[in-house]
Amino acid sequence: MSGSTFGSIFQITTWGESHGRAIGVVIDGCPAGLPLCEEDIQKYLDRRRPGQSKFTTQRGESDSVQILSGTFQGKTTGMPLSLMVPNTDQRSRDYGNIAEVYRPGHADYTFDQKYGFRDYRGGGRSSGRETIGRVAAGAVACKILERLGVTVTAYTKSIGNIQVSPERFHLDACAGNPFYMPDAEAAKEAEALVTQCMANKDSTGGVVECIVKNLPAGVGDPCFDKLDANLAKAVMSIGAVKAVEIGDGVAVTTLHGSENNDAMYYENGVLSKKSNHGGGIYGGISDGSDIILRAHIKPTPSISAPQNTIDRAGSNVEISIHGRHDPIIVPRAVVVVECMTALTVLDGLLSSMTSRMDKIESCFGSADSLPHSLS
Amino acid sequence: MSGSTFGSIFQITTWGESHGRAIGVVIDGCPAGLPLCEEDIQKYLDRRRPGQSKFTTQRGESDSVQILSGTFQGKTTGMPLSLMVPNTDQRSRDYGNIAEVYRPGHADYTFDQKYGFRDYRGGGRSSGRETIGRVAAGAVACKILERLGVTVTAYTKSIGNIQVSPERFHLDACAGNPFYMPDAEAAKEAEALVTQCMANKDSTGGVVECIVKNLPAGVGDPCFDKLDANLAKAVMSIGAVKAVEIGDGVAVTTLHGSENNDAMYYENGVLSKKSNHGGGIYGGISDGSDIILRAHIKPTPSISAPQNTIDRAGSNVEISIHGRHDPIIVPRAVVVVECMTALTVLDGLLSSMTSRMDKIESCFGSADSLPHSLS
Amino acid sequence: MSGSTFGSIFQITTWGESHGRAIGVVIDGCPAGLPLCEEDIQKYLDRRRPGQSKFTTQRGESDSVQILSGTFQGKTTGMPLSLMVPNTDQRSRDYGNIAEVYRPGHADYTFDQKYGFRDYRGGGRSSGRETIGRVAAGAVACKILERLGVTVTAYTKSIGNIQVSPERFHLDACAGNPFYMPDAEAAKEAEALVTQCMANKDSTGGVVECIVKNLPAGVGDPCFDKLDANLAKAVMSIGAVKAVEIGDGVAVTTLHGSENNDAMYYENGVLSKKSNHGGGIYGGISDGSDIILRAHIKPTPSISAPQNTIDRAGSNVEISIHGRHDPIIVPRAVVVVECMTALTVLDGLLSSMTSRMDKIESCFGSADSLPHSLS
Amino acid sequence: MSGSTFGSIFQITTWGESHGRAIGVVIDGCPAGLPLCEEDIQKYLDRRRPGQSKFTTQRGESDSVQILSGTFQGKTTGMPLSLMVPNTDQRSRDYGNIAEVYRPGHADYTFDQKYGFRDYRGGGRSSGRETIGRVAAGAVACKILERLGVTVTAYTKSIGNIQVSPERFHLDACAGNPFYMPDAEAAKEAEALVTQCMANKDSTGGVVECIVKNLPAGVGDPCFDKLDANLAKAVMSIGAVKAVEIGDGVAVTTLHGSENNDAMYYENGVLSKKSNHGGGIYGGISDGSDIILRAHIKPTPSISAPQNTIDRAGSNVEISIHGRHDPIIVPRAVVVVECMTALTVLDGLLSSMTSRMDKIESCFGSADSLPHSLS
Repeated sequence: MSGSTFGSIFQITTWGESHGRAIGVVIDGCPAGLPLCEEDIQKYLDRRRPGQSKFTTQRGESDSVQILSGTFQGKTTGMPLSLMVPNTDQRSRDYGNIAEVYRPGHADYTFDQKYGFRDYRGGGRSSGRETIGRVAAGAVACKILERLGVTVTAYTKSIGNIQVSPERFHLDACAGNPFYMPDAEAAKEAEALVTQCMANKDSTGGVVECIVKNLPAGVGDPCFDKLDANLAKAVMSIGAVKAVEIGDGVAVTTLHGSENNDAMYYENGVLSKKSNHGGGIYGGISDGSDIILRAHIKPTPSISAPQNTIDRAGSNVEISIHGRHDPIIVPRAVVVVECMTALTVLDGLLSSMTSRMDKIESCFGSADSLPHSLS
Repeated sequence: MSGSTFGSIFQITTWGESHGRAIGVVIDGCPAGLPLCEEDIQKYLDRRRPGQSKFTTQRGESDSVQILSGTFQGKTTGMPLSLMVPNTDQRSRDYGNIAEVYRPGHADYTFDQKYGFRDYRGGGRSSGRETIGRVAAGAVACKILERLGVTVTAYTKSIGNIQVSPERFHLDACAGNPFYMPDAEAAKEAEALVTQCMANKDSTGGVVECIVKNLPAGVGDPCFDKLDANLAKAVMSIGAVKAVEIGDGVAVTTLHGSENNDAMYYENGVLSKKSNHGGGIYGGISDGSDIILRAHIKPTPSISAPQNTIDRAGSNVEISIHGRHDPIIVPRAVVVVECMTALTVLDGLLSSMTSRMDKIESCFGSADSLPHSLS
Repeated sequence: MSGSTFGSIFQITTWGESHGRAIGVVIDGCPAGLPLCEEDIQKYLDRRRPGQSKFTTQRGESDSVQILSGTFQGKTTGMPLSLMVPNTDQRSRDYGNIAEVYRPGHADYTFDQKYGFRDYRGGGRSSGRETIGRVAAGAVACKILERLGVTVTAYTKSIGNIQVSPERFHLDACAGNPFYMPDAEAAKEAEALVTQCMANKDSTGGVVECIVKNLPAGVGDPCFDKLDANLAKAVMSIGAVKAVEIGDGVAVTTLHGSENNDAMYYENGVLSKKSNHGGGIYGGISDGSDIILRAHIKPTPSISAPQNTIDRAGSNVEISIHGRHDPIIVPRAVVVVECMTALTVLDGLLSSMTSRMDKIESCFGSADSLPHSLS
Repeated sequence: MSGSTFGSIFQITTWGESHGRAIGVVIDGCPAGLPLCEEDIQKYLDRRRPGQSKFTTQRGESDSVQILSGTFQGKTTGMPLSLMVPNTDQRSRDYGNIAEVYRPGHADYTFDQKYGFRDYRGGGRSSGRETIGRVAAGAVACKILERLGVTVTAYTKSIGNIQVSPERFHLDACAGNPFYMPDAEAAKEAEALVTQCMANKDSTGGVVECIVKNLPAGVGDPCFDKLDANLAKAVMSIGAVKAVEIGDGVAVTTLHGSENNDAMYYENGVLSKKSNHGGGIYGGISDGSDIILRAHIKPTPSISAPQNTIDRAGSNVEISIHGRHDPIIVPRAVVVVECMTALTVLDGLLSSMTSRMDKIESCFGSADSLPHSLS
């Protein structure tokens, strides 16, 4: 209802502001018996940590996670996992200017309209730091999915007009450049582009792609909770995302049915598909092939070039935004897209366990074999 | 949880299959005191009714709605509205062939994988007829929004590669062509294109755009329930939609921040914006300007040209799909996009009523003036 | 949110008023593959049908259920089940008097305060006929539970001050008297009591008890969704219920811990309990023994003796309520308590399927054996 | 879904175990603009703090709350409030014995059955310390209610068979005795009773009553989310509660309708009631008079007298439970009942804001006066 909770079975609730005491998430519905330590989560948080290259904010945060509840003897107990990351560099400075001005492209004006109030320090709740809770929870989701053989992998597909080339695509290349691009050459071009943006006191956007492998067929619902619908919400709920595509996405509108339909066939008894324009989802339900989606991310609205805007008092003013912000959101959004996808897919997977009487009967057995029924 | 319910305050639950006895929706949370009759709903259903042109299925349904509960003396009572449309043309025919074959691009295989079962008659629950419940509920949402001055309008923006021209854009033109295109000339080109598709036993896709006007600033939440996130889910949950854009959507990824930011300014005391690349939503919350979104719809998967696929027994087979289906989904999806948008926007609007203490206090008054407190 | 939906996985939404066109329920989340026909549901509805004895309203309704969606070839499909009971005896009569007067003990005044409106015909949505949807859905829940070996049985424990005697307790006796009392002798005394009430133009209350047998251990959550908490809500949401007890209920407050604790022990390898004061629930979770609860039901507020009350215009008036109403609610509430209990228990059972990693892994298999993963 | 979240608009999620690092709660949906500091919450926590008399556990916890998010400049921002209480006295000791044994009357066996796992340190999540999150959230709810003129007050009504006398009832007396009894004389008798229990290595139960004053008419829904149903769940979800009564509760079953109906009347233009057997709720909706409920609480299951039970290995064993536990749960449960009642009532109050078109229209104005609509 109130917007900080996501998921129905594996359900997360995030909290915290950019410059508050801490940021965190509560995961309710995590199954018991999962081995889990802070390092499992930290490695995901490290991928979105600031200050890792000259292209990200220089805010000096270690973003160290603490597990406050929900584990015992190294395993989850089935009880809420409370994960917290203290804010350590909520730098004290003069916000007098920002406090009264609505930054263009930001939530400043809209937040104030809704709540009659605004935490102007670093964007408050509307800051990108809000995604820390998503990533911490997503790390747990990914660990569960891995144990079921399901993998979720996101990477940068484009920065401005620089595209990853299918010919040069190597996932291993992601770790070798600050943009998480699976194409070392494109990454070099992106570096030049973003460097130029910074020189121009400007910013740029890009595209993140995410692929889910080995998800069983049968995940997702046929009506409102289609797997693609839930993925669209999950990904669009990440700040700065302005479009979501599944499979071939916008490209399908100019295709014919005969081109766009994905034919299934058996070869030596193994089921396969001739194409995957649909991105692994038909009628809202997974078919067992790769789930493919893309998030289109706008250029960072905070730029140091002067901009026209308004203030709270109702005057037209000019603003130049200095301080700690990224010239491009995309690289640090990669792990967030990955995590939101994982959370959505896991929730759908768990939800599908109750879809059939035969599954339920095999879980609980028949009347003759009730576990531990007391006389 | 189970996927047939949408919304949190104005909450709808749809039911029914293509060839069952009826299709319907229950609306829970509709405020009391809204004048409502069947004609209010029927006029929306008529816009998605089959058989209105040679480009839509010839299924002969009147799709007449009945209000079974929730009104009294011509007004809503605050109790669940049960709206039902009997199926009258669930033609008896031999489904023997379809029953055992998984049609490419459809939910046949995925549904069967999930439920171990499939209602093969006309697609069952995965049929486009499922949207009848959405449209009936959306008609009620639209009526409430109208009383608050908010309008929701969708139209066809493109069919295949035929685009509506901004220069020739007239909303009035929509009613004059079978594609609901606001450009009579483009509609003629689309007619030629779709006619050719039909001759080729093939199908095509297109784009629906939707605009919300006069929505107050302050609707939407800053985290998971961002207005754009909920709209993305709402629209992506419509069968055949493969991408959703907000505002400039995919185009923003190649813009600079200085180009993409929408500057607000006052002119003679009136607040205005120089551009609306953001589509009226910033940080997940509306700013009072037009909300703009686009749904990208794939070509109809049912085509009469022969296709390769598999059957339930595990064999490769060829299939040609005859029977009643549209060569293009887009025109009949227009009202569905409009309705899903209206449902989302209304739910956000109602939800925003509890966001501030001052609003709550003015609703309930102070301790001195409690209504009807009994001694 | 809006109050007509119950359950999280096996989720029901009811609709309909006493004197509207029909009453119904939509069940979303019913697993696929359950054999189901209208007779399965009808036999439960027949137990709450009016007019079965001189102690129930003479409204002449057959309450015949129709399954409008969600089954195919005699089995559930996993899609929403829409169940409808047309109202056939919504007798046309003059409500002029009732329409303007608030009947004591009824929802008339409170409903009007909330909605500014009231369907005064037979109580509208606040009528006991609202429970038809609950019973129809409960019948489906009971059928699923039966297949898992779980039984739910309710009966009348007392009418006014007439108690069922433990010595004479025979469940078979319920069918032999109009009060569903498992004690033929007590039923005779109750008959005399209620006959006297009717002669006095008055009414009386009573207690319904419900027992769940063979529910596996491990159903329910440790915090807010304790099994007993959800049962309390389920049962208290039935009109006229004013108290709910679990196990020994109110009696435990005067016991010592040494008396109230239920000791478990093994005898010949079989787990057993020395007592069941707790009613089969500890820390909100079932232990595999009998779940026991009681609903305390107030006397019918509609009585034909004259009463003082107020009208909408703000005057003091006298009212005598004639028309069709029961002198005692209890007997017809028995099946409602049974159904609400079944719905709660089933939802908890399904929910418990995702509580452990080992269960999940055995459901989805390991990475090596994913079902139907497409290459 | 997963059981640690309560409420629909003012929604809380609790986390933490008895012997973990901390206990906490996230409140999502708290309206913006409420003045709030840690002391507002601390004073409620202090009422449930251990070690305040010889009748409560000697665990030496200060239970100091920290507000980690959701406030700015002394007011709530509308964003999630994260409230945390570090555990400081999770005494390290040998649990070897307890770890393998299922304590009678506790959740040990049932938790293990559900999760295959158990945090045996002090009961883990099933400890009474879990209620810290409820009380912290309830303190915020109470503060909001107070500003609307609504008060929620709970007290001990009985300890074992010692009842508060209506003649000696003084709320002020509560603070003067360790049992929060509004009757100093009864409190003395209770002290003797509990002292005797302790000497006997035994425990006792009791009853908590709660009264809500000045709640406007019109709160609650007519179907599943009846105000009394939600209160019943709220209160039954507190550990050790075995029965919940509304108004006269169990006593109504032996009354006649003519006795139990509460007559409303006007006197000098002021609305009043002759009695309040119904406890202020009719048809699930408040009528503006006092809401009255009672929670029946079992004797503490942890007793130091020897008891028979079983262990994990499947053997019969004897156990004597030493360590820190209360001989009676009731006094410390008073504030928990108060807080769960406040949370439920506030959620219902906020929910009622969207029940009528006229209220909604006056909140958003008409088409002519939209706030801040951008051109």
